[in-house]
Amino acid sequence: MDAEIIAVGSELLTPFRKDTNSLFLTKKLNELGVEVIFKTLVGDRLEHIKNAVLQALTRVDLVLIMGGLGPTEDDLSREAVAGALDLELRRDNEFVAELHKRFASRRMAMPENNARQADIIAGAIVLPNPRGTAPGQWISGSFDGREKILMLLPGPPHELEPLFEQQVMDRLRQRIPQSFIATRLLKVAMLPESQLDSRIAPIYTRQPLVETTILAGPGAVEIHLRSRADALETAQHRVDKLAGQIEDELDDFIFSTQGESLEQIVGYYLQMRGASIAVAESCTGGLIGERITSMSGSSRYFAGGAIVYSNELKTEFADVPAKLIKEHGAVSREVALSMAQGIRKRCHASIGLAVTGVAGPTGGTPEKPVGLVFHAIADDESADVVERRFPGDRERVRWWASQQALDMVRRKLM
Amino acid sequence: MDAEIIAVGSELLTPFRKDTNSLFLTKKLNELGVEVIFKTLVGDRLEHIKNAVLQALTRVDLVLIMGGLGPTEDDLSREAVAGALDLELRRDNEFVAELHKRFASRRMAMPENNARQADIIAGAIVLPNPRGTAPGQWISGSFDGREKILMLLPGPPHELEPLFEQQVMDRLRQRIPQSFIATRLLKVAMLPESQLDSRIAPIYTRQPLVETTILAGPGAVEIHLRSRADALETAQHRVDKLAGQIEDELDDFIFSTQGESLEQIVGYYLQMRGASIAVAESCTGGLIGERITSMSGSSRYFAGGAIVYSNELKTEFADVPAKLIKEHGAVSREVALSMAQGIRKRCHASIGLAVTGVAGPTGGTPEKPVGLVFHAIADDESADVVERRFPGDRERVRWWASQQALDMVRRKLM
Repeated sequence: MDAEIIAVGSELLTPFRKDTNSLFLTKKLNELGVEVIFKTLVGDRLEHIKNAVLQALTRVDLVLIMGGLGPTEDDLSREAVAGALDLELRRDNEFVAELHKRFASRRMAMPENNARQADIIAGAIVLPNPRGTAPGQWISGSFDGREKILMLLPGPPHELEPLFEQQVMDRLRQRIPQSFIATRLLKVAMLPESQLDSRIAPIYTRQPLVETTILAGPGAVEIHLRSRADALETAQHRVDKLAGQIEDELDDFIFSTQGESLEQIVGYYLQMRGASIAVAESCTGGLIGERITSMSGSSRYFAGGAIVYSNELKTEFADVPAKLIKEHGAVSREVALSMAQGIRKRCHASIGLAVTGVAGPTGGTPEKPVGLVFHAIADDESADVVERRFPGDRERVRWWASQQALDMVRRKLM
Repeated sequence: MDAEIIAVGSELLTPFRKDTNSLFLTKKLNELGVEVIFKTLVGDRLEHIKNAVLQALTRVDLVLIMGGLGPTEDDLSREAVAGALDLELRRDNEFVAELHKRFASRRMAMPENNARQADIIAGAIVLPNPRGTAPGQWISGSFDGREKILMLLPGPPHELEPLFEQQVMDRLRQRIPQSFIATRLLKVAMLPESQLDSRIAPIYTRQPLVETTILAGPGAVEIHLRSRADALETAQHRVDKLAGQIEDELDDFIFSTQGESLEQIVGYYLQMRGASIAVAESCTGGLIGERITSMSGSSRYFAGGAIVYSNELKTEFADVPAKLIKEHGAVSREVALSMAQGIRKRCHASIGLAVTGVAGPTGGTPEKPVGLVFHAIADDESADVVERRFPGDRERVRWWASQQALDMVRRKLM
């Protein structure tokens, strides 16, 4: 079955707001084997919403209208769908009474407008909203000789998501020919997308029953695998088999096979090994510490660190000899190694991690160009350094550098 | 004039990808006085793209089709638009020769498929692509008795944006009845949206000729003002007047009147005062340092800092007496103040900034619940501390805390 999502709200047509809700709906629909083939974003205008609903009915059998169910005069989805289907809109007085009760329980008088949320399209099934006052509505019937389903859903994610899980998923399951979808997500660090694709394209193109989507971001590439079958085992077997073949090819470039983030994986390994880590950051300015501590419970393995932006602080907090900086420069292999060893000792951690480089856009020289970063890792036995030249702007260079540094921790503990 | 944006690409119908390109197009169109009234997202299927183009032509006079211009067999926008308009698609042999030349200059042979990028719709104006091989196309003519404009635009932002600026803006300006739009953006720190709205709603509702959009994020609210008029001065006067009234009401809660970020404003003030800053971060784990150093040139005012996650490091790097921590606990007013004073001295900075709190979700107690954060700022004369209890998850608590800390720097230097 094919679906169209219509997101209603004038804010979605401004330069400021992205539509993110439809990603949740797409994921849930895909799980049922439903494909979203169109998404339409439309403002809070009656004629435009009506137009979008009518267009959608010409091209799909399942139409999800999201937003425009609130109490204000801008909330027009109910009227628009009733108008498009030429059905009556009736105020449900029992529901109005319930709304009054809800407000009373919070010792508030209900604004008159709110009664609009009790307007129900003739023949619709009401979908109770566990987190808000506006219920969803489910309408099914024959349009132009085909069985179609339309539904009205609330816009705010914290209302939409539980309502969809509790009220919609089972209803849809009963109406959709049984099919199962299995998915896998592999994440790869520090391998450019083009190299990755040329290595795995010969593998995934041999498996047309698995849909492979490759999404690249700075320092990480995601490989999404997805297969649909009449039995879950069949679908699962297909994606697992392909995932295994890709893992064999990419080997330790893959850092995650269950959707984990790199900071999560680094945290797992540190805990598993009973290790602790300290960071000395120059050009990343705190980003590596921020990423490690973004994980709940990171105090078990993160000792702390220093943001050693100036030469003096590299000496003060990470015991880098001033002479070393003078000889080699702050952005150098030698200083990176000394920072990693120094911060490790100062923080009494088992592992020291350090980064020094030129994030740009200014500060580059012919010998030390923008994007040049040295990453060092040290434990009580050895120390390693990796030199990289990253492309892109300040934000990307810093992200790549943090990614490289965290990946070095992963590889050391793996 | 009303416009519809059609974004083409199957990845936009997955649960993984948001459409962000259309925000750029919306911004530029709004500047010309064009409203986007529909956005449609469609996959790489010929019939679906054709369908979307035909639907768009029934409801707007300006249709922008973005994406699907690449060299692969999935890139079908040219064929779809030619099909929808019943126009011929002709291969431009001069352009094919130029493509061959481009590849030759990089010492590569052109893959046969690439010649598809030279397929031009009959009557279209070719819009050269300064950053890629696929040109845009501009088609105008009468459809169903109305003058309409369609254009094909490349999907990648770094190709789309310069092409649109250089090739499309002036052409559109000549076709659109002259009107001018003025905008202003005010940013407000640490004031909840509901409080903000109840203070300024009486002001902006009196000015219906300015469209006011309020967008809330953690620790900051944006107030977007926008007005359209026949003369730029009229529009500008309206938004400036309203902005002035809102500034009077919200006073020093407003941190930015020209779109600047909080870290940018903090950077301005520090430079203007010839001051420097050092940070001691506990629960934010490096986030404040990361935000300050995200600005290019921040080495002029950012001395450095320490991520003092453990009690020992609070003493080691920020000179917090161990006794003080024992007496008051690491999350306390006293320790926050001591951290700010200590890090200031250790980094030889004029201002010390410190944060200690419970980011959660674990680690809370009845006396020190999750979300409790102490923020301190110190210079050579005085020190202040602010206690807050933030709502939300770990990420939000940490973001709020960094926002509060940076806002304290702004208020101190203002």
